[in-house]
Amino acid sequence: MTKRIVIIGGVAAGTKAAARARRRDPYAEITLVERGDLISYSGCAMPYYISHDIEAAEELTVTRLDEFTLLRNINVLIGTEAVSIDREAKTVLVRRLSDGETQVLPYDNLVLTTGGSPVVPPIEGRDLAGVFRLKEPADALRIRTEVDAGRAQRAVIVGGGLIGMEMAEALTANGVKVAVVEMLDRVLAPFLDPEMAALVHAHLREKGVDLHLSERAERFEGDAEGHVRRVVTSSHVLEADLVLLAIGVRANAALARAAGLQLGPTGGIVVDDHLRTSDPAIYAGGDCVENTNLVTGQPLYGASGSTANKHGRVIGTNVTGGDEVFPGVLGTMVAKVFDLNIGSTGVTEARARELGLETITALVPGMDRAHNYPTRQEIVLKMVVERGTSRLLGLQGVGPGEVAKRIDVAATALNFHATVDQVANLDLGYAPPYAPAVDPIHHAANIIRNKRDGLTTGIGPSRLQQMIDEGEPFLLLDVRSREEFAERRIAAGGRLLHIPQEELRSRIAELPRNVPIVAYCARGIRAYRAQRTLRGLGLEDVAFLEGSLLGWAGKTESGENSD
Amino acid sequence: MTKRIVIIGGVAAGTKAAARARRRDPYAEITLVERGDLISYSGCAMPYYISHDIEAAEELTVTRLDEFTLLRNINVLIGTEAVSIDREAKTVLVRRLSDGETQVLPYDNLVLTTGGSPVVPPIEGRDLAGVFRLKEPADALRIRTEVDAGRAQRAVIVGGGLIGMEMAEALTANGVKVAVVEMLDRVLAPFLDPEMAALVHAHLREKGVDLHLSERAERFEGDAEGHVRRVVTSSHVLEADLVLLAIGVRANAALARAAGLQLGPTGGIVVDDHLRTSDPAIYAGGDCVENTNLVTGQPLYGASGSTANKHGRVIGTNVTGGDEVFPGVLGTMVAKVFDLNIGSTGVTEARARELGLETITALVPGMDRAHNYPTRQEIVLKMVVERGTSRLLGLQGVGPGEVAKRIDVAATALNFHATVDQVANLDLGYAPPYAPAVDPIHHAANIIRNKRDGLTTGIGPSRLQQMIDEGEPFLLLDVRSREEFAERRIAAGGRLLHIPQEELRSRIAELPRNVPIVAYCARGIRAYRAQRTLRGLGLEDVAFLEGSLLGWAGKTESGENSD
Repeated sequence: MTKRIVIIGGVAAGTKAAARARRRDPYAEITLVERGDLISYSGCAMPYYISHDIEAAEELTVTRLDEFTLLRNINVLIGTEAVSIDREAKTVLVRRLSDGETQVLPYDNLVLTTGGSPVVPPIEGRDLAGVFRLKEPADALRIRTEVDAGRAQRAVIVGGGLIGMEMAEALTANGVKVAVVEMLDRVLAPFLDPEMAALVHAHLREKGVDLHLSERAERFEGDAEGHVRRVVTSSHVLEADLVLLAIGVRANAALARAAGLQLGPTGGIVVDDHLRTSDPAIYAGGDCVENTNLVTGQPLYGASGSTANKHGRVIGTNVTGGDEVFPGVLGTMVAKVFDLNIGSTGVTEARARELGLETITALVPGMDRAHNYPTRQEIVLKMVVERGTSRLLGLQGVGPGEVAKRIDVAATALNFHATVDQVANLDLGYAPPYAPAVDPIHHAANIIRNKRDGLTTGIGPSRLQQMIDEGEPFLLLDVRSREEFAERRIAAGGRLLHIPQEELRSRIAELPRNVPIVAYCARGIRAYRAQRTLRGLGLEDVAFLEGSLLGWAGKTESGENSD
Repeated sequence: MTKRIVIIGGVAAGTKAAARARRRDPYAEITLVERGDLISYSGCAMPYYISHDIEAAEELTVTRLDEFTLLRNINVLIGTEAVSIDREAKTVLVRRLSDGETQVLPYDNLVLTTGGSPVVPPIEGRDLAGVFRLKEPADALRIRTEVDAGRAQRAVIVGGGLIGMEMAEALTANGVKVAVVEMLDRVLAPFLDPEMAALVHAHLREKGVDLHLSERAERFEGDAEGHVRRVVTSSHVLEADLVLLAIGVRANAALARAAGLQLGPTGGIVVDDHLRTSDPAIYAGGDCVENTNLVTGQPLYGASGSTANKHGRVIGTNVTGGDEVFPGVLGTMVAKVFDLNIGSTGVTEARARELGLETITALVPGMDRAHNYPTRQEIVLKMVVERGTSRLLGLQGVGPGEVAKRIDVAATALNFHATVDQVANLDLGYAPPYAPAVDPIHHAANIIRNKRDGLTTGIGPSRLQQMIDEGEPFLLLDVRSREEFAERRIAAGGRLLHIPQEELRSRIAELPRNVPIVAYCARGIRAYRAQRTLRGLGLEDVAFLEGSLLGWAGKTESGENSD
């Protein structure tokens, strides 16, 4: 008997599931129902359309509707919404939006790929003209029209997540003065620990973005024409003629909920490893489902066009008699924010702490290519490893240099539950145009191994801040050159001493033996060596400041050299 | 008692072993013996010094001698060679090259990091002036001096390996007319299968390199002053005023051999997983040892600064009472050759065949970034998987786009014995500036899964060539546009038919049902779809040409459209 497959939602997961099912079963009756007028578009590319990196709106489309239906013989109903599911009768009621005409579609397997939507918080003034969200190409077109017409001089982006960051760049690049309001103490909080986010904050400010952290947008105020003019936050009033709500994305699960399908704690539809919902005749994938984090085993919600494509293939296989498993996700993220490449996979130190995992971390600035290769650029990696098991938990990267490759290596290693020792010996590609002989990811793994094995003691910037704030007795030792010291140094009052690294041996007598010493330099490398030298000279209680000045977001001072 | 550690060879592995041993044991007596005048230089950077990408010779040095000795308290004897090892007495006899003075160094542990040397074949004329090899910075300096002085108008590089390729670019970039003579049928043969190497050949020729494959250099002829002027090969006489011997690298194992240590089939010193030689008091690492290939379990010799650094750390740990294992290598390679990024890890299809492994492969052209992102560039990946186990065996990549990342992902996956199904679902970083939603590596894995599961049939260019040559009955179907067809098409005589992809359904009657059909297009994507369409229309015996015209190194023709 001919199998009837009905798919609700035609962006990434839905079209992929349809195409895959058709490939495996030339005779199945496949119906794809899409609420909008477009199928198979690239949501992730919308910021690049607004920035004019991508000029034509048609380029947002991955597969054209006519190609899709012609080549694959799939019945596509656009402009049509699914109203309700009768699980008993195995039918879906759908309604054409243009004329309200309804139709009942019987199915053997139903596939829910209803996607996700930007969260719209219940903020006063959210319906004013000029308040946008970025869900689909029509939104991108509206925003670009505002910007191109010069009607958006000042924009406020509510939310410092991925879309917020990409849009901060896209709008700034087109002459819009941008403010970002983020409730938490940092941008990209699920992906970056505070010291890594601090690097992004500094860069955003350098690029002219007015960054408001730990601040909540409380209401939007408009003019007489009902157009937004101001954003009132918990501590500022920001002028705005364009507001973008980019607080996050939530699964479109209303249809599933109404049908009594199980939803998870994140609000996404619960699926098993075959992407079957709690009703075995119904599959779900893409941004409407909750995934399992392969590192933590916990539910994870995160919209991703890449995951949606994988889901689509697995579902297309399973609804046509195949047997394919989707293993789970790692929460991998890469993003370009102005001149920074940013990435993260697995769990951050902050998240590990929430989960009660004890960690060893390394914050490592390094070069993405050989030290002598002309196009080398800096990247800062933070690696997080579980204490005891030495299992890799996550990697974060920020910098103008190549970050995405290191993130992908870590994601692959995480998939196989790699230990830090295995990461340290991975046979990665080495040539000066691509990597140093000791890749930053190897270097990070080695520092963690040295910390684990008691060969080095590194402290993070937040620990140093605490030592300064709480007046703990210690000596902060700056081992940079006189010029560097005079230009800018960590403000630690009388507890700061400056001895250039190469003078350490001859000036050892100046160092106290009764208080802990924390060495720092520009990026951590000289401090790391200084620690080794001092230990070799019998000073045991020496730590180095990981990331050193580069990762330091606290107070600094400048002026004449005091040593 | 103070431990005495003697290290022979001070480039990458040796200096790393010394530094690591010092870090773990502040009291050990560490002596480093180096034949040359430099320690810790980057051999891999020499072509970039010759090309002037790296301007100053000092930049080739990784750690300066004075820094190295001062910071680490290591006794360094430069300009000193190791003459012999007395394993019974645990001593090494060393001799200072400047005055011949000898010294006997007692050791508790001896470390051999004697490196590798370019193979110099017994070719007549190899001692003529102007015949070079590239072993150490002094060689690079001599070659650069010749080039900069305009004395090298025409160069012949003997050997199409990594150094040969990098030097072809470096010399061409400085105005030298370059010919490459390679004995085998392709460049980079250990790393690339023929159809992947064909992409490199086309690019080299485009860049003006005179490429002589399957040709042997038989003698070098000089002028009256004893300067090289011609290279006589098995089929040509090539003019040359500079010759570079770049046939390969061999382990410097004479000292070890004379001491009775075990050498392996590749000529490298045999070490166990702790990098101990057949004498448990003697360790060895870097380019003088033979590694184990993690995929095949076979011995593998390959010089690598990255492996040398890892070896050094493992040895430094183990000679100071630690217990660290080096797992093995994958033969990972990345190289920039003109505008191409080239990489390989694991084993090629050709190598798998030698090992008697049955494979499924995929040759996949694709974009390195999203299809609509402006800086996207093409890459071609070839994935090799073991039939039966579905285990990943290797990945190769060539193209102007980002290749190194995909190679590193595959190297990481190989380290954990990943299956192709695991590779297909890796949660890699996705955003338009870094990758398409379905990464080329995912796409390659999916094509292999489709081939394995009988959902698609791809043939490689060598199989198609065989079908043409042997007059097998088949139809070659070009599914590109009329313009593309007229411009250039595969020469297959009367067996070629042209039907653009979008006309396939309406012109199905023109296709024969009694002979196999092979569809091709520009890169394989339309041909892959055409296969799907034709199968959907009941034509079962259809294959597509993997890589299509892009991977086709055979005959082509052009002219008016015949359909």
